[in-house]
Amino acid sequence: MSGNTFGRLFAVTNFGESHGPAIGCVIDGCPPGLELSVEDIQPDLDRRRPGTSRYVTQRQEEDKVEILSGVYEGRTSGTPICLLIRNTDQRSKDYSAIARTFRPGHADYTYLQKYGLRDPRGGGRASARLTAPMVAAGAVAKKWLQQKYGTTFRGCMQQIGEVAIPFESWDHVPNNPFFAPVADVSELEAYMDGLRKSGDSIGARIRVTASGMPVGLGQPLFDKLDAQIAYAMMGINAVKGVEIGAGFGSVAQRGSVHGDSLTPQGFASNNAGGVLGGISTGQDLEVSIAIKPTSSILTPRDTIDIEGQPTTVVTKGRHDPCVGIRATPIAEAMLALVVMDMAMEHRAQCGDVLLPLTPIEASRP
Amino acid sequence: MSGNTFGRLFAVTNFGESHGPAIGCVIDGCPPGLELSVEDIQPDLDRRRPGTSRYVTQRQEEDKVEILSGVYEGRTSGTPICLLIRNTDQRSKDYSAIARTFRPGHADYTYLQKYGLRDPRGGGRASARLTAPMVAAGAVAKKWLQQKYGTTFRGCMQQIGEVAIPFESWDHVPNNPFFAPVADVSELEAYMDGLRKSGDSIGARIRVTASGMPVGLGQPLFDKLDAQIAYAMMGINAVKGVEIGAGFGSVAQRGSVHGDSLTPQGFASNNAGGVLGGISTGQDLEVSIAIKPTSSILTPRDTIDIEGQPTTVVTKGRHDPCVGIRATPIAEAMLALVVMDMAMEHRAQCGDVLLPLTPIEASRP
Amino acid sequence: MSGNTFGRLFAVTNFGESHGPAIGCVIDGCPPGLELSVEDIQPDLDRRRPGTSRYVTQRQEEDKVEILSGVYEGRTSGTPICLLIRNTDQRSKDYSAIARTFRPGHADYTYLQKYGLRDPRGGGRASARLTAPMVAAGAVAKKWLQQKYGTTFRGCMQQIGEVAIPFESWDHVPNNPFFAPVADVSELEAYMDGLRKSGDSIGARIRVTASGMPVGLGQPLFDKLDAQIAYAMMGINAVKGVEIGAGFGSVAQRGSVHGDSLTPQGFASNNAGGVLGGISTGQDLEVSIAIKPTSSILTPRDTIDIEGQPTTVVTKGRHDPCVGIRATPIAEAMLALVVMDMAMEHRAQCGDVLLPLTPIEASRP
Amino acid sequence: MSGNTFGRLFAVTNFGESHGPAIGCVIDGCPPGLELSVEDIQPDLDRRRPGTSRYVTQRQEEDKVEILSGVYEGRTSGTPICLLIRNTDQRSKDYSAIARTFRPGHADYTYLQKYGLRDPRGGGRASARLTAPMVAAGAVAKKWLQQKYGTTFRGCMQQIGEVAIPFESWDHVPNNPFFAPVADVSELEAYMDGLRKSGDSIGARIRVTASGMPVGLGQPLFDKLDAQIAYAMMGINAVKGVEIGAGFGSVAQRGSVHGDSLTPQGFASNNAGGVLGGISTGQDLEVSIAIKPTSSILTPRDTIDIEGQPTTVVTKGRHDPCVGIRATPIAEAMLALVVMDMAMEHRAQCGDVLLPLTPIEASRP
Repeated sequence: MSGNTFGRLFAVTNFGESHGPAIGCVIDGCPPGLELSVEDIQPDLDRRRPGTSRYVTQRQEEDKVEILSGVYEGRTSGTPICLLIRNTDQRSKDYSAIARTFRPGHADYTYLQKYGLRDPRGGGRASARLTAPMVAAGAVAKKWLQQKYGTTFRGCMQQIGEVAIPFESWDHVPNNPFFAPVADVSELEAYMDGLRKSGDSIGARIRVTASGMPVGLGQPLFDKLDAQIAYAMMGINAVKGVEIGAGFGSVAQRGSVHGDSLTPQGFASNNAGGVLGGISTGQDLEVSIAIKPTSSILTPRDTIDIEGQPTTVVTKGRHDPCVGIRATPIAEAMLALVVMDMAMEHRAQCGDVLLPLTPIEASRP
Repeated sequence: MSGNTFGRLFAVTNFGESHGPAIGCVIDGCPPGLELSVEDIQPDLDRRRPGTSRYVTQRQEEDKVEILSGVYEGRTSGTPICLLIRNTDQRSKDYSAIARTFRPGHADYTYLQKYGLRDPRGGGRASARLTAPMVAAGAVAKKWLQQKYGTTFRGCMQQIGEVAIPFESWDHVPNNPFFAPVADVSELEAYMDGLRKSGDSIGARIRVTASGMPVGLGQPLFDKLDAQIAYAMMGINAVKGVEIGAGFGSVAQRGSVHGDSLTPQGFASNNAGGVLGGISTGQDLEVSIAIKPTSSILTPRDTIDIEGQPTTVVTKGRHDPCVGIRATPIAEAMLALVVMDMAMEHRAQCGDVLLPLTPIEASRP
Repeated sequence: MSGNTFGRLFAVTNFGESHGPAIGCVIDGCPPGLELSVEDIQPDLDRRRPGTSRYVTQRQEEDKVEILSGVYEGRTSGTPICLLIRNTDQRSKDYSAIARTFRPGHADYTYLQKYGLRDPRGGGRASARLTAPMVAAGAVAKKWLQQKYGTTFRGCMQQIGEVAIPFESWDHVPNNPFFAPVADVSELEAYMDGLRKSGDSIGARIRVTASGMPVGLGQPLFDKLDAQIAYAMMGINAVKGVEIGAGFGSVAQRGSVHGDSLTPQGFASNNAGGVLGGISTGQDLEVSIAIKPTSSILTPRDTIDIEGQPTTVVTKGRHDPCVGIRATPIAEAMLALVVMDMAMEHRAQCGDVLLPLTPIEASRP
Repeated sequence: MSGNTFGRLFAVTNFGESHGPAIGCVIDGCPPGLELSVEDIQPDLDRRRPGTSRYVTQRQEEDKVEILSGVYEGRTSGTPICLLIRNTDQRSKDYSAIARTFRPGHADYTYLQKYGLRDPRGGGRASARLTAPMVAAGAVAKKWLQQKYGTTFRGCMQQIGEVAIPFESWDHVPNNPFFAPVADVSELEAYMDGLRKSGDSIGARIRVTASGMPVGLGQPLFDKLDAQIAYAMMGINAVKGVEIGAGFGSVAQRGSVHGDSLTPQGFASNNAGGVLGGISTGQDLEVSIAIKPTSSILTPRDTIDIEGQPTTVVTKGRHDPCVGIRATPIAEAMLALVVMDMAMEHRAQCGDVLLPLTPIEASRP
């Protein structure tokens, strides 16, 4: 109800502001008995962490996670898991000048209208920094799903600005700062260097998948697996579009092409993106999201101040020129959280999850 | 939790199957004192109703709604409103042949895997017929929002298959069977007639908007207004993609272009689609959805039966060649239900909704 | 949120008013595959039904239940089950005189204050008639729990007014109109006949139990099994007190007496009432509830009218002189609904429910 | 769903274990603009804090609260408020001997059965220490309700063991370690000193009230104000019974006595306890709860170990001889949290809360 809890059975409540003392989350409902330590969580946080290349914000945050509760002698006890990340490199002085101005593309105007006051330090609650606790919670879900069903989650960059990125191999993704599935990222480096010098920013398109999916996850009518995914993805900062499977490409498809044939060896294609009638088919989940360009740019923009008077704003500080880059581990985490919740709901109603009757191969690489 | 209730404060619980005795919903949480009769609900049901043109299914359903509770002397009493629609033209014999086969693109396979049994009559619970109660519930939300804030909801067709449809005027939408905002639909008629003869089906792209929006609706972090919209839209049968504002177009946009400037007269553009940081700006909500081609087609398809043996299936019966056509009033209703719920949530936390400080004009027609 | 849905995973949404066309409920989340027909539900409805003896209201309602959805070929399909009960013997003319007066002990004043209008016909939504759909839903839960775990639910009368009723045997309960566990109810008959002639009403105390309980049901911290039971019981019309196990008797107990010893054969006593730390022990659940006297009485009462002027009210019509009598099957049903929901939640987090390690005997008969 | 979040609109998620590094909560949904600092919260925590007299546990915990988020420049910002309390005086060595034994009256057996593992240090999650964050959250609710409606919350001791405590005045409550509303507590002191020497423990009965209640709070059918109160109270550790208004006393009342007459000056009595039909009348809320004797006692008790073998257990360590004593501020806090949530729900559906039409006096002192 309250907007800051994600999931119902694996319920993650997020708290904190960009420049407050700490951010974190409480995971309620985690199955007991899962071996868990900070080593399971930190690697995903490190993938999302700022300051790791010249293509992302230079804010230095170690993003070290502490487990404050819910783990006893190295295993989850079934009680709430509080994960805490301290903010260490907040520089609120960077933001004092803009407290009275609405930055275009930012939530300044809407927060003030909604709440009657707003925390201008680093975007406050609207900062993408608040995705860090979700990456931490997602790591817990990933571990349980991996152990229980062998489900794994991966994401990669599909497009930055006008530059489409072909899919070569998942192996390349960890080897470049763009999460790009290609061996050679020199074009992307040049593109991003040019962008940075221009003082502007750019959008991106991310692909995220789940493999080894159990069959039967998702709840009709409204809590369809794909509806939950859309909700999770659109809830990530700056996301403006979500596709499942063929997505917008299905508009111009014939039914005879779109509907994935079934064979004794599995589905012959995956236009469905792993979901039929809101329920998982056992194929790979295939999700694609559009991320808008960073709103914090050096280019001067027209706007108004809190008295409604016209003014101009330039957003200095340390910002990602393409927020889409660091969105890959975030989208993976959110997808894992959706699957986790749906797995638990399925178990509640139907008993333990069935594995697919037949080995099903995804049609996309 | 259970998947068949939409909304939390204006909570709509949907029930029924395509070929059972009745379908319907229970609206819990409706504000008291709203004048309400079937005349407020029936017009939207009539817009969604089958059998109204040769371009949609020929199933004949009057879709007459009954109000079983929650209204006393013509006004809502604050108690649950049960809306009942009887099924009158179900022909289960049409479906008996396919009970043992998984139709490509349908939920047959996933329902059987999830529940261990399935109702094959007309798609059972997975039928798009279950959107009718949502259209009815949406009409109640629309009336309250119109009276309270002057908010209105409209939708139109943007594309059918390869045929893009330019926006001429909202005035044309009710005057053709495609919900197309154009005066001349002869091209669409020819396209659809050809499609119908081919025994195949096609996808569509729908636009849906809200005007006269209050500022400040939506809950960070996860229950963002746009996240709730994405959830609602992706929950509609056959939807494969959702965009807010510039949507996937924002991938190739520069930040200096995407971020909507503010002026004393309002926002200068609406790439945001009426939402910043998950909270409404007061601009028009702008949503676009992709709908896959109808899965029920006369073209023979390869599939397997419930023993896993290969077979071929042809789906006879009465089906929409483009399910997207009748999706327009459905998408409007779902958008209204989201706005209603968010309006009530806002009221709970922040008191009554503020109207925008300045008149804000949407940038798109 | 909305107040008319009970349970989260086995979620029962109730609708209707005492004198509207129909009452009913929608059960969402029922496990699939359960054999279900009206024959499973009607017997419990008949136990609650009015008009069955001279000690209860003479309103004649057959309370015949229809299953509108969610059952296919005699088995639950996992989709929402709509249960409908038509009102047939509403006599609204009985109530027209009191529409402008607040009856002491009734919800007339609070409904008008809350909603700004109220349905005066038979108490509208505040009528105990709305417990009928819960009895119907409880019958579905009972059947599943009986089949899955062998859990059974029973209730009996403990006290009517000043008359305490000793426990002789469960066998007597169905053999008298008071649900009394005694062979000879002549004292109760005389007491109730005297009360009826006096035009007054009286309170009652009911005991309700569950046997064959799985161990481990209930969620700390807030959704304790006993907290959920207290919520369910206090939600029944006219209930003013709830006890678990030793209840208020535990105030004067020493810890050395209250704490139930464990032995290899099970617990040696059941002061806990089957719940420790909010989680079921496997012992019988032991619940006791206090029900206030019927508010509708022939004795004239002082009150005010809707203008705030003093007046006197006499409630004619057909009323139970002791609403507690018909509360027994209602309390059983609500207890079953709580256990059902907790069983499903347990399954979601911890996998399937364990039966107790050792046979545990309840200490009370 | 998950059991560790209380409330829906003012949602408090609790985390931590008795002997972990910290305990705390996240409040989601707090109205923005409320002035808030630790000074508003600490006094209630100090009232609940251990080690303040010889009649409660000698564990020394300062229970200093930190506000980690949700407050900006001294006012709530509408975003989640994380309240953290560090554990400083945990002595886990006290508990190591009992890790393999089930203490009678404790949750040891049920936690192990439910989760397959348990944290034996100080009762882990089942410790009453976890009520501290609720007292903190309750202080926030109290402040908002006081400012908005003038609603205030008070509690006092009614009975300890066999010793009934007459009500003399609220003024005495803060002046003795028992929260007793009497000037002279010498009898209670003697009783408790004797009990402490015997190595045993005792139960208690607490009264808690709300004054200055808005009219119209509470949701029929299930989320009745009194049902929510029963749920909240029974969720407090060791509570075994809950009464509203006349409570179990209503069993032997006639309807002509129980039903509170209305007069132009208000209700003439308060058997209802401030609730009719689940909705607040504007009278004082009157709640009474039974608290069982502390399960941790020095008296040896028969039990079994985790292998099911008979053994004897003595619980050393530092324990409250009567957990009921410190329950008074806890019960007040939980009552405030219920009223807060219901106030917000009312506001969502019906707009802002109405004050009573006429001044209504509670019948009890």
